[in-house]
Amino acid sequence: MSSTATTSATGSADSYTPTDRTVPTRSRQRASYDRALVHAILDEGYVCHLGFLRDGAPVVLPTLYGRIGERLYVHGSTGSRPLRMAGVPAPTPDTDAETDTGLPVCLTVTHVDGLVLARSAFHHSLNYRSVVVHGTAHQVTDPEELRAALDALVDQVVPGRAADSRPADAKELAATAVIRLDLEEVSAKVRAGGPNDDAEDLTLPHWAGVVPVAPRTGTPVPSADLDPAISLPAYLTAL
Amino acid sequence: MSSTATTSATGSADSYTPTDRTVPTRSRQRASYDRALVHAILDEGYVCHLGFLRDGAPVVLPTLYGRIGERLYVHGSTGSRPLRMAGVPAPTPDTDAETDTGLPVCLTVTHVDGLVLARSAFHHSLNYRSVVVHGTAHQVTDPEELRAALDALVDQVVPGRAADSRPADAKELAATAVIRLDLEEVSAKVRAGGPNDDAEDLTLPHWAGVVPVAPRTGTPVPSADLDPAISLPAYLTAL
Repeated sequence: MSSTATTSATGSADSYTPTDRTVPTRSRQRASYDRALVHAILDEGYVCHLGFLRDGAPVVLPTLYGRIGERLYVHGSTGSRPLRMAGVPAPTPDTDAETDTGLPVCLTVTHVDGLVLARSAFHHSLNYRSVVVHGTAHQVTDPEELRAALDALVDQVVPGRAADSRPADAKELAATAVIRLDLEEVSAKVRAGGPNDDAEDLTLPHWAGVVPVAPRTGTPVPSADLDPAISLPAYLTAL
Repeated sequence: MSSTATTSATGSADSYTPTDRTVPTRSRQRASYDRALVHAILDEGYVCHLGFLRDGAPVVLPTLYGRIGERLYVHGSTGSRPLRMAGVPAPTPDTDAETDTGLPVCLTVTHVDGLVLARSAFHHSLNYRSVVVHGTAHQVTDPEELRAALDALVDQVVPGRAADSRPADAKELAATAVIRLDLEEVSAKVRAGGPNDDAEDLTLPHWAGVVPVAPRTGTPVPSADLDPAISLPAYLTAL
């Protein structure tokens, strides 16, 4: 998405400042606070797993997100669980922003890159890249920000698509809620490379290596009711 | 993995009993409690997003899981965050199971099946299948259950692999912690099919349909130090 080089309240232009909860207890060498790496991981995906509390218990739901600079936007209707549970008011013209105390969340994006098969069961692993964002999400109430967020959400899934669809009308905007999460307390974690077998296992008769994994997009399937005169747009053939 | 038709404490042989937190607030028609569907979604994956609390705030981390009947096993070293945060003791021969108060978790598995492009930005969606499990996770301390869980974790990633690797030795078992989560409070959610455009949008000049998405495994890459006499096992060519 946008690569605007906004600097957040915490961290330098190049990296986020580590905090207690973004420094892992294990495999610290895999953690990174590099802003460009975090952006790249986020921009490669469109589904996050959003964690929040409901009645004091954790809830994790998959949902769409979009990035604009140092902000993530997460989609949901005004009736959706995260927003209702937070007591976040529905977006009405007279919503008082001060009543929005926010929703403590943890937003995680993960890409699996490979299955790491070691000679020993113990050293089996995955190659992956993940980003974990901690923070407090707030509802987007400014109409202009809401429109920009919706465009970002659509373009996160298929870059270029927002401009080639009917924009939300007033009724749809009122039925849509988007929450905003600033990229401040953020870390990336990356595991790459082959298996780390113990030296004494190297002669064992088991195959060892990496099976690459990546998402594949198939041939687009037009709706049955699509006008046959409408051909596949370039942004889809490029996928 | 195993499709043992164990019936859990809640629910029938065919389905899980819905609870307050497994009935969604929206799109209830997409929710399912069908046991076979839940198992199928779980068995197709190996990465979950595990949510738990740390200092009262939500944390969501990607991690490996395996299924044996009506139990999920989640992997972590004894130093890993979920286990330490729960105050769950490390597995020692004299661990008293009663000191394990358990870790409230939410475990979510998601498969993205397609990008749903509607004429209107508002009706853009994803086709997906997800499973959300709520419950309290407990550390596995029984050595036999621990070994079975580790096999399940390896076989969840590559079926057949556990038998073709060196099993964990006593030292590795001691350095590994696995938590167990019973499948009791469980729901699946499925979105399939084309876009649901409003009737008045059907003549708009925008392409509409579904772009299929699926994970693809590439050609396995042997370790540089692999004995060239060891050929690719059948369970990998089958992937």
